[in-house]
Amino acid sequence: MRTSIATVCLSGTLEEKLRAAARAGFDGVEIFEQDLVVSPDSPEAIAELARELGINLDLYQPFRDLEGVDEAQFKKNLARAEAKFRLMARLGIDTMLLCSNVSTATIADDGVVVQQLRRLGDLADGYGVDIAYEALAWGRFVSEYDHAWDLVKGADHPRIGTCLDSFHILSRNTDLSRIAEISGDKIFFLQLADAPALTMDVLSWSRHHRVFPGEGAWDLSDFLTRVAATGYSGPVSLEVFNDSFRQGDTNRTAVDGLRSLRWLEASIADQDASPADGSDSSSSVDPAPGLDLRPLPEVDEPHGINYVELSTDDLGALTRQIHQLGFQFIGFHRSKPHVQLWLRGRARIIVSEVTDEVGTGATGADEAGTTSAPVNGTFLRGIGFDVADSRAAMERAALLHAVEVPREQAHNDEVLRGVFAPDGSEVFFHQSSPTTPAWIQEFGHDHDEQVSHIDHVNLAQPSNHYDEAVLFYTSLLALHAEPSQDVPSPSGLVRSQVMSSTDGSVRMPLNVSPQPHVEAVAGRGIGSVVEAYPEHVAVTCEDIFHTAATALSRGLDFLPVPQNYYEDLDSRFDLDPDFLHRLQENHILYDRDERGEFLHFYTATIGSVFFEMIERRGDYLGFGAPDAPVRLAAQHRKNGQLSE
Amino acid sequence: MRTSIATVCLSGTLEEKLRAAARAGFDGVEIFEQDLVVSPDSPEAIAELARELGINLDLYQPFRDLEGVDEAQFKKNLARAEAKFRLMARLGIDTMLLCSNVSTATIADDGVVVQQLRRLGDLADGYGVDIAYEALAWGRFVSEYDHAWDLVKGADHPRIGTCLDSFHILSRNTDLSRIAEISGDKIFFLQLADAPALTMDVLSWSRHHRVFPGEGAWDLSDFLTRVAATGYSGPVSLEVFNDSFRQGDTNRTAVDGLRSLRWLEASIADQDASPADGSDSSSSVDPAPGLDLRPLPEVDEPHGINYVELSTDDLGALTRQIHQLGFQFIGFHRSKPHVQLWLRGRARIIVSEVTDEVGTGATGADEAGTTSAPVNGTFLRGIGFDVADSRAAMERAALLHAVEVPREQAHNDEVLRGVFAPDGSEVFFHQSSPTTPAWIQEFGHDHDEQVSHIDHVNLAQPSNHYDEAVLFYTSLLALHAEPSQDVPSPSGLVRSQVMSSTDGSVRMPLNVSPQPHVEAVAGRGIGSVVEAYPEHVAVTCEDIFHTAATALSRGLDFLPVPQNYYEDLDSRFDLDPDFLHRLQENHILYDRDERGEFLHFYTATIGSVFFEMIERRGDYLGFGAPDAPVRLAAQHRKNGQLSE
Repeated sequence: MRTSIATVCLSGTLEEKLRAAARAGFDGVEIFEQDLVVSPDSPEAIAELARELGINLDLYQPFRDLEGVDEAQFKKNLARAEAKFRLMARLGIDTMLLCSNVSTATIADDGVVVQQLRRLGDLADGYGVDIAYEALAWGRFVSEYDHAWDLVKGADHPRIGTCLDSFHILSRNTDLSRIAEISGDKIFFLQLADAPALTMDVLSWSRHHRVFPGEGAWDLSDFLTRVAATGYSGPVSLEVFNDSFRQGDTNRTAVDGLRSLRWLEASIADQDASPADGSDSSSSVDPAPGLDLRPLPEVDEPHGINYVELSTDDLGALTRQIHQLGFQFIGFHRSKPHVQLWLRGRARIIVSEVTDEVGTGATGADEAGTTSAPVNGTFLRGIGFDVADSRAAMERAALLHAVEVPREQAHNDEVLRGVFAPDGSEVFFHQSSPTTPAWIQEFGHDHDEQVSHIDHVNLAQPSNHYDEAVLFYTSLLALHAEPSQDVPSPSGLVRSQVMSSTDGSVRMPLNVSPQPHVEAVAGRGIGSVVEAYPEHVAVTCEDIFHTAATALSRGLDFLPVPQNYYEDLDSRFDLDPDFLHRLQENHILYDRDERGEFLHFYTATIGSVFFEMIERRGDYLGFGAPDAPVRLAAQHRKNGQLSE
Repeated sequence: MRTSIATVCLSGTLEEKLRAAARAGFDGVEIFEQDLVVSPDSPEAIAELARELGINLDLYQPFRDLEGVDEAQFKKNLARAEAKFRLMARLGIDTMLLCSNVSTATIADDGVVVQQLRRLGDLADGYGVDIAYEALAWGRFVSEYDHAWDLVKGADHPRIGTCLDSFHILSRNTDLSRIAEISGDKIFFLQLADAPALTMDVLSWSRHHRVFPGEGAWDLSDFLTRVAATGYSGPVSLEVFNDSFRQGDTNRTAVDGLRSLRWLEASIADQDASPADGSDSSSSVDPAPGLDLRPLPEVDEPHGINYVELSTDDLGALTRQIHQLGFQFIGFHRSKPHVQLWLRGRARIIVSEVTDEVGTGATGADEAGTTSAPVNGTFLRGIGFDVADSRAAMERAALLHAVEVPREQAHNDEVLRGVFAPDGSEVFFHQSSPTTPAWIQEFGHDHDEQVSHIDHVNLAQPSNHYDEAVLFYTSLLALHAEPSQDVPSPSGLVRSQVMSSTDGSVRMPLNVSPQPHVEAVAGRGIGSVVEAYPEHVAVTCEDIFHTAATALSRGLDFLPVPQNYYEDLDSRFDLDPDFLHRLQENHILYDRDERGEFLHFYTATIGSVFFEMIERRGDYLGFGAPDAPVRLAAQHRKNGQLSE
């Protein structure tokens, strides 16, 4: 599948955009006119740069407001088009995007439009240019893809085809069945964008909120499958107007975009390879005859969080807190003396000590895999996921352009490989087995099965890379994004969205805090996104009152819960006074829904990490959402005290 | 007029919110339930704090999902309400906001709702509580204010009244005429919010985008006038859910909010004092019998920008550039030896030199007027506006809670007073006269009238204080906000909105750059918002080619304009080749509309300031919007070169 990206998706100068697209691995780009107009480089120089970079210039766009006008205006428009054809010749581009008229159309007569398209085709033919006519969702008279297709069919000119853009089609909720009527060789270009489900005017939605496939609410796989079935054989191109992407790191955004196309391509290639069981016995028909689809190694959803690794420069405080929560010290890693393991049932925490001598070994990495200096503090360094096939998962991750974590490996250690997530944390793929994980032997422990496991891990995300994170976990780990929520805190609303596996064995709320405008690529310690929004590990227990009592006897610094909270709880749930009293005495928060109950308490924060102990009763599936503002307010007050 | 503010408008803890509201000067607050629930302070302690601060606790809110339910559910709801009544007694609050049922209503029968309201009233009566029933715009069965009023009338209970909220009413575009039917003593509370004109779902609009009166698109003055005419005599309260306010500085937001109410109050008081000419001869009727309205000194729109003051630590470079643009050095200030004046016609630039010895005298100031250390760099320090009555303007500014700029004043100098704008720049009120400004004598110059004047000043705004800036210029200087535009730049979209006087003699585009997440309160030099988005002064001239030639001969460093721009210009406007050539030769950009033409060039940036020279032909009123991306891209490239 040939991949392309519109330069308007990316930040920077035109030269920076071309270099980023080529570096990420795109086959081509669409030149957005304004990027050229503001560039000091001549069209010839741009063409030469593209040749050097080995990237094709696929499309010149947009040409606006041509058709549906009177003859005098149309002649002016043709002259304007001809100037662009000459420019395209200098760029070496042979396809131009023509948007349906928004501003100047006065004639709502398909016959007139067909004639005008044909005359444009004649003019274009002299320059060897193909015209891809696209219905903008807010076009004056032409706003539906099938209308544009009818006009193209009517024009019946070898230089006039159509352009399909998923945004303009899916945003209008148009019936997609007529895509099958279009002949693939008359689709001159294909643009893809996903979008979150927003209820707002379509122009603002389009100009600010588009995202890459897999980052929004739409089924781009179905859309692309329909277009592929027509026999379309051109580039599959991203055209995404997104405020964050426009100001983010160009190279990162380009990689994010290419990942979305590779993921999408594979999702269709997989359908190809394995048709729905028995639903189609004549499955020998190639569903994408024009696209050369490459599959990816398939991965199933992870089965759980095998371990969490924390880095710390305050080993005493961190391990004391873990011990207070009922974790047992198991041992030091046999070949890494600054790494230790703590267990509570199946909840495993690896603690890596940072010292001035050894450093953490933890490093940030940019998309190119270059690493920066070790970082200090106490922070969540990585998560090990239980996967069925770690080798396939790692191979898939690499093909999805994730950057591998450099890791020292003793010759007799379990092979663990992983990649950097967009927030700078490490994602390791652990081959799960029904028995004790193999790597635990390295700490000299025989596993003792108990009820505790890691319920969820709450991560902080840099706001500019939020969409990238959703796609990352979706495409690499087959996790699903649940609808996002806003959680009020004293310093603003926190946007929170849970990524989870279907069976709930892996759950990660991703949180975008209102305050930090920091990049997370450089690491996860001091100065990174986790400083403004601490992360936490939530661990289940069988009896939260017992766990709290143990913690209290060992001197745990609980996060305080206000009296007002318990009074409100009482008015909401009409609780037994004894039970309410026990909750309050143990700093335990409470929630209930029709499925069950949720009891939990929080620890104080060390560095940028704290813990939550959880008892789930019945089939309660949530995270105690009403309690999150209570926690955030208490943490805000603690921070205030610290800074006094 | 008694002023109040809902705690949900502000960031911080409940205690911080109360202190900020009291410090700004509000008479009361609405306690938002969640703020209390997450607070470690008991209701009694909150009540005591409010007493100490001299601020009234006007309302407890919200109580949700009471009415339109079956009897079993209603009894539970009454129990829930009673718990809150007990809590309110501890807080000393006697009014509760009841929102129309959103989630649990199953009975769309007004008779049932009337009965249930009456029973709630009976219960509330035992606690001395008044219920203010409000129709939420997204209420299940009750979503219109007049419907809520009909229900309140039906309940006919002394403890049951209605609450009017401008957001819920204006967002639905409901006919406002029925407000006149409500008796003022049955309006138990009044909440005001403004909002930008957005086309989106009303819940998101409400929860994220409300702003203070004067910062949005609605006519709150008309709304308040209608409510006041009923005889309403309670607090006028702000209830604004706004993502930026929730994360901004609490004290600043509180002052911003109170300013909006003072401005609104005065706008109605002024109507009172001066009814529309002859339109109502029976104008002795008090339009706001229940509100004690205080007027403000009235100000007319400014007549022009009298001068711009720049601070610099690179005097040579700045004055050289000014001289290259045809400005003449006039002299040094007679009592401030580091201050000099440059003129070009009526365009006046004051240059203040920063040296290690003298400092600029420029300081930042927070809302309390405490000042921080002098700042360095080259930056726009302030603007002097021509106003008809500088004393009235300054008095009005002070009553609108603006902070006065501390200024040394020699005994025989012209008295100039000014205040800090939200972006940290200084706003001076200069008493204009038909002749030469008096202060110019201080530089020993007789004014020579020429065509040049300051056309506009382009300012950078910190994103979190954008709405505050709109209200500031609207309320203090009677400027108007034009619709905002997004300007693409290599580092993201720049939001740009012009504040202007009706005759166009004062025009200030306010720009929010995507990158800087810095607070501007601490000054305008290095590290402030202007570093990421340089500001500029645009000066008109009679013959831009002559001005450019002079500048070239004096060695001006023009901002370069790409060849591609001129080629695109040609395709858009079909220009005479000679003319196009002359434009390009002189780095002049060009725009045209049906009213006239616009020719302009830019200088290189010094510190965070650059200049634009402008020739307007005909009645062209714009700013060359299509050229702004060209400028931003060129500046981006320059920055890139500098940082290499």
